[in-house]
Amino acid sequence: MTKKHRNGEVSELEREMSGGTGEVGGVILGIDGGTTSTVCVCFPFLQPQSLHLPDPLPLLARVEAGCSNHNSVGETAARETLEQVIAEALSKSGSDRSAVRAICLSVSGVNHPTDQQRILNWFRDIFPSHVKLYVRNDAAAALASGTMGRLSGCVLIAGTGCIAYGFTDDGREARAAGAGPILGDWGSGYGISAQALTAIIRAHDGRGPQTKLTNSILQTLGLSSPDELIGWTYADQSWARIAALVPAVVSCAEAGDEIANKILQDSVKELALSVTAVVQRLGLCGSDRKGSFPLIMVGGVLEGNKGWGIAREVINCISKDYPGVVPIWPKVEPAIGAALLAWNFLKDSQQE
Amino acid sequence: MTKKHRNGEVSELEREMSGGTGEVGGVILGIDGGTTSTVCVCFPFLQPQSLHLPDPLPLLARVEAGCSNHNSVGETAARETLEQVIAEALSKSGSDRSAVRAICLSVSGVNHPTDQQRILNWFRDIFPSHVKLYVRNDAAAALASGTMGRLSGCVLIAGTGCIAYGFTDDGREARAAGAGPILGDWGSGYGISAQALTAIIRAHDGRGPQTKLTNSILQTLGLSSPDELIGWTYADQSWARIAALVPAVVSCAEAGDEIANKILQDSVKELALSVTAVVQRLGLCGSDRKGSFPLIMVGGVLEGNKGWGIAREVINCISKDYPGVVPIWPKVEPAIGAALLAWNFLKDSQQE
Repeated sequence: MTKKHRNGEVSELEREMSGGTGEVGGVILGIDGGTTSTVCVCFPFLQPQSLHLPDPLPLLARVEAGCSNHNSVGETAARETLEQVIAEALSKSGSDRSAVRAICLSVSGVNHPTDQQRILNWFRDIFPSHVKLYVRNDAAAALASGTMGRLSGCVLIAGTGCIAYGFTDDGREARAAGAGPILGDWGSGYGISAQALTAIIRAHDGRGPQTKLTNSILQTLGLSSPDELIGWTYADQSWARIAALVPAVVSCAEAGDEIANKILQDSVKELALSVTAVVQRLGLCGSDRKGSFPLIMVGGVLEGNKGWGIAREVINCISKDYPGVVPIWPKVEPAIGAALLAWNFLKDSQQE
Repeated sequence: MTKKHRNGEVSELEREMSGGTGEVGGVILGIDGGTTSTVCVCFPFLQPQSLHLPDPLPLLARVEAGCSNHNSVGETAARETLEQVIAEALSKSGSDRSAVRAICLSVSGVNHPTDQQRILNWFRDIFPSHVKLYVRNDAAAALASGTMGRLSGCVLIAGTGCIAYGFTDDGREARAAGAGPILGDWGSGYGISAQALTAIIRAHDGRGPQTKLTNSILQTLGLSSPDELIGWTYADQSWARIAALVPAVVSCAEAGDEIANKILQDSVKELALSVTAVVQRLGLCGSDRKGSFPLIMVGGVLEGNKGWGIAREVINCISKDYPGVVPIWPKVEPAIGAALLAWNFLKDSQQE
């Protein structure tokens, strides 16, 4: 018997509080906090009748806001964004704070226990102690979106930023990359685009060969000369704005441009290396490297699969060392992965 | 006869206005506006009795302030810094705005005619039209500090940022690099340090080999783990703060660390390539590449010459293609180079 049923009166109160959810169990929230946007989803907490999840999942609300990576926007803005999506998701669900049973905050920029603790502290002030709070790197939600809530295997995220994150069944985890553009995430959308912009500057000033990237990207940005790229770049250094140039790089590579092709090949090597570093450290494939593991593929850079397929090349590259790699493109979004994690964590804590 | 002597009364007035300078000719200002600091020097405008400059130069005032690169701090802060150093230099000289004959603003971040025009407009509002205003990239002042005011040859600046800039006697000019860290200035102090930080992250997460850089830089920064580098890096992304790690990289290379050595070698190649791209575009060494040209070496990265000498390696690398390269380490600072440029421009305009 779960805690909430130990006292019939509390259960009655909760039934009232859950209001519009139509569920006696309150709600759970899953948050995918990224560098580009933050998504929060709200589900009823269904008592686990079996190990299987209902299909389709009974989504109560989904809301979206801006960046919640404290490294990009600062702590105050990150906190406000997270509080805002929670408040809006509860309001849209016809619910309120008192109905919350568990929240999984899977947030980009959580790189160290102090990052985790800071976010926990923010929400410990808001939610009473019986509300389960889980703070993870956004990689956890992305992985769970492909494994339907099981924290096992490896996830490769390559959107504006990139990171490889692996989890073992016995609770170990490891990551590679995900340190942002200054610290060399060259496989990311930002990294690809920054290399392309650099190639244009180098062609212009005589340090590098001419490339189709020049016309393609100047046209995309409405600029008339490579000199103007410097002003454009530093006028607003948001990572997402720069990363948005990836499709132009892919188009140039598909049109046979060698410089664009080399940039994408380098990106593939970087992304594959991130995954193999994690797999090796965790021993995910056993000592013979032949074991099988799921690799969840997430993010804009890994989505296109016509023409120059970055994701396909990454898988080819990884499978040379680890033939048991099983790529999975998630069917649900990372925020739902976060909610599934919250659901599983809460279920496990009740069974303890 | 110069304009100012056409009317005796105006000349008397000017003599009064020049006040503490003790000169009838008013003053000239030279400004070296960098990413790290901005220096303004004030000299009396000596009527050219001969082609030779007085030695020592009769410096009236020197003042220093923060960054005036609009790409780093924005237009408002850049303008305020420039106005501030001018006001302070005039005040310290016992002079005022009415005594100013010419100003050379040699400012980092001036990459396009629109940048030049913007700064001209700021000061056209403040100074009457007979005051000569010259706005250049900060490379011009650096070159002039080595050639004592002659705008001819090539300058390589490698401090926080890096740029190669060349000028021909017939008024042509060309630049390479100087586009900032996002656009691949890997030879700069920032570039070297960012590569070193990246190498630490890669060693830590299994993507790269171990390196002495880890202990050396963590100790320098007072951090206990490479994970903490991410927070450190994004807490304050000022380019100068990151570039300040160059001495640690040089020490590790001198101690035999292969990763640090490779980072410095790559930096050398990048810096040499910037110079040769400029020399080639301007034809500075003639069609046989054997001609002689001065290469002014400026900035913290090119100063050390014990142990791992980046400057020495850059010269070796350039002289393979252009044996006529003549390295010059300036004996005066770039702000004085800017003042010498203002002095020469004004002198030339009077002789026209």
